[in-house]
Amino acid sequence: MPTNDTHDPTLRSWVESANDPAGDFPVQNLPLCAFEAEHDGHTHAHLGVRIGESVLDVAMLAEAGWFDFEQDEEGIVPSLLHAEDWSMIGAVPQLMGVVRARVQEFLLHDAPPGGQQGRRLRQKALRPASETVFLHPARMADYTDFYASIHHASTVGSMFRPDNPLLPNYKHVPIGYHGRSSSIVVSGEPVRRPRGQQGPPDDKPGQPPTFGPCTMLDYELEVGAVIGRGNNQGEPVGIAEAGQHLLGLCLVNDWSARDIQKWEYQPLGPFLAKNFATTISPYIVTADALGPFRCPAFARSAGDPTPLPYLLDEADQREGGFDITLEAWLQTAQMRERGMVPALLSRSRAFREMYWTIAQLIAHHTSNGCNLMPGDLLASGTVSGPGAGERGCLLELTWAGRGPDGKPLPRKPIELPSGETRLFLQDGDEVILRGHCEREGFARIGFGECRGRVEPAAAE
Amino acid sequence: MPTNDTHDPTLRSWVESANDPAGDFPVQNLPLCAFEAEHDGHTHAHLGVRIGESVLDVAMLAEAGWFDFEQDEEGIVPSLLHAEDWSMIGAVPQLMGVVRARVQEFLLHDAPPGGQQGRRLRQKALRPASETVFLHPARMADYTDFYASIHHASTVGSMFRPDNPLLPNYKHVPIGYHGRSSSIVVSGEPVRRPRGQQGPPDDKPGQPPTFGPCTMLDYELEVGAVIGRGNNQGEPVGIAEAGQHLLGLCLVNDWSARDIQKWEYQPLGPFLAKNFATTISPYIVTADALGPFRCPAFARSAGDPTPLPYLLDEADQREGGFDITLEAWLQTAQMRERGMVPALLSRSRAFREMYWTIAQLIAHHTSNGCNLMPGDLLASGTVSGPGAGERGCLLELTWAGRGPDGKPLPRKPIELPSGETRLFLQDGDEVILRGHCEREGFARIGFGECRGRVEPAAAE
Repeated sequence: MPTNDTHDPTLRSWVESANDPAGDFPVQNLPLCAFEAEHDGHTHAHLGVRIGESVLDVAMLAEAGWFDFEQDEEGIVPSLLHAEDWSMIGAVPQLMGVVRARVQEFLLHDAPPGGQQGRRLRQKALRPASETVFLHPARMADYTDFYASIHHASTVGSMFRPDNPLLPNYKHVPIGYHGRSSSIVVSGEPVRRPRGQQGPPDDKPGQPPTFGPCTMLDYELEVGAVIGRGNNQGEPVGIAEAGQHLLGLCLVNDWSARDIQKWEYQPLGPFLAKNFATTISPYIVTADALGPFRCPAFARSAGDPTPLPYLLDEADQREGGFDITLEAWLQTAQMRERGMVPALLSRSRAFREMYWTIAQLIAHHTSNGCNLMPGDLLASGTVSGPGAGERGCLLELTWAGRGPDGKPLPRKPIELPSGETRLFLQDGDEVILRGHCEREGFARIGFGECRGRVEPAAAE
Repeated sequence: MPTNDTHDPTLRSWVESANDPAGDFPVQNLPLCAFEAEHDGHTHAHLGVRIGESVLDVAMLAEAGWFDFEQDEEGIVPSLLHAEDWSMIGAVPQLMGVVRARVQEFLLHDAPPGGQQGRRLRQKALRPASETVFLHPARMADYTDFYASIHHASTVGSMFRPDNPLLPNYKHVPIGYHGRSSSIVVSGEPVRRPRGQQGPPDDKPGQPPTFGPCTMLDYELEVGAVIGRGNNQGEPVGIAEAGQHLLGLCLVNDWSARDIQKWEYQPLGPFLAKNFATTISPYIVTADALGPFRCPAFARSAGDPTPLPYLLDEADQREGGFDITLEAWLQTAQMRERGMVPALLSRSRAFREMYWTIAQLIAHHTSNGCNLMPGDLLASGTVSGPGAGERGCLLELTWAGRGPDGKPLPRKPIELPSGETRLFLQDGDEVILRGHCEREGFARIGFGECRGRVEPAAAE
């Protein structure tokens, strides 16, 4: 079986667009996707890998025998590559390693498949990414959303609970809740503004609520961990093994209706404020590809409690983090009409500063015996840094703090290059999340885009 | 197509055990299940219907042509009856009506399928329920848990928030949160006691939490609504149509780790306290079968707010409730060893007194555009009545209120016929939930059992 150093920065592909040093998708990345393919007059889900400006049809490669190995007599790898998403093969880390190496081999200059048949396969198996309809890259039958950015939790907590922004459990328990899996959509799908109940104003608590279109629609910039190997119900995953259950990462926009959230969330947490839509990027950047970009876990402050033993592992503390630069961009309808490019709302490397690592989230999630399934999505919660330009949602970006009387100061709107301002999202606004990893001596890899445009609320 | 009055109380089946007037499963009920069938040396999921002490193999009937109709040229009904659960055919209410009538026809004395072939089919298609391995009757890809019993919410609220037991939103918003779908198990599966973080005692808030087996394990007696027809994302279901999206009801035990819950649930709601296991009964009692047992929605007290228009429908107020008697039973290991029958913990018709009807839960859930999928589970939350013997969980049953100083009085343990006492569940305890409907002039129908035994926590 092939055993390249798949991160070697000198590797170049015959797919020329993959060799752009500023691109997201060099031959060192190879993120996983699924897309609509047509044959026999029907539409099928095919597995793919993004390379440069193209998508490689992995199902077609499997069909052509490119994943046939002597050691795999029963053809397990090829058959798993004919699935509708990456969950099944992602459940077997060893096979994923083989697939990565073999896909890379296909795409490299110096190891082309021979002869005319190989050349034809090269041509047939590539399609322009811009003309591809992407599907869910993994099953995502269950979706959990965490709250792991201490900067986000502190800022938001101070808005709702000025006296105790960080609750007493925060530094002990990786706080999370279950999201809705049915309404997860892939980048590019429009998102309809939700309607819902809005509670009475703070100073008139006795007034009845009203029902109408959300007036405080927000995005949340998050990173999603996609589960590879699952665990049996009743069998927790130890912290030392937890990292091996990660298939890879994607971008997540956890759209949030702040007015609905404020009124509904006590005592059982967010519900309709979140479950109308969650947008994911079409690509899972694999844990393999992210290897060079691991970093230490967040350095806790002196006085912070040591995590309980089931959450503490020396190797995880040393390299359980990921060094990813995350960005949020906004393009309004007016900006589109005037041909203006999207405006940057935030950029940060704050994902290094999540209070809990992904291994800790997995160990915690399963510590009670809860079974994670291949393809499940564990989102990080809004990723925010401490700086003003590092905040991962409008709720934080427009927060102006409290005055000397303890009351919130008026929110400060975002000013856009078009002269427009925003406290929250307007109809026609498009939010674009991006992420990439850079490190001296390695090829830059990226996450592509997680994009969604706000459509007006449904008619009454 | 057949058009019997499927509720006619004089109908009797040739399956003699179905004619017991005290049984759960007469020919007027016909609840839906799925089970393990073996053929060709493999195990397959088959659709079934419970009848008396037997399960009717509906897939086998379909194979034999029993659901072939001239009007169904393409054989849609038979093909949907070869699915692994009832979600797909349940998504089409008209077809479900046909299936119900046709299954009933097969089981009736006065309309037997003719000849030797029919007699052989009768014999082959029935299997003893006691020897059947039941599977999930519906897909349940997403699971939502509500909090719709005002008696439960008031009692529990008074424990955690003595000053404001019912939060200001309760009488306006059907409060709910997302549960975990992967850990839903079918009646009979053992449930392993979870481990988890327990917070510091109330009087020592600065102490660090500990991690270990749950010491306050509880059951919650709930009713689950299984969705038939789904809705598209972005397209709310109006309250007048919401009831048509109900396939049927089952029993749900929403196992709860109260110590874990108390420490983790702020600010985003219950998570590990709930997601280690949820047990469902193997049967979906269909909305059709429950027709005669509809009742008015809960009569709100004078001064209670009128529901907002999106939750208010005259017909739903008139007959949106279900009159079901629910029971919880407990059998300890010692009781089993001594040959003692389970002890009754609670019995009530409090499901009539849920603050919100199932149509209101569906309309609310989709009001923001959230898409419900066929087979989804919407549980009611703990069903409790106002009386002491009507409370649907141990947390409530052992609550002794507060003393004159406002502090909680010591909890009052349940006393069992074995002489044992319980504040919470012990290892080896088996919880059995039951439910049935009775009304003059109609056959009694029941839900069967939702049963689960507590196993010791995993070794560390």
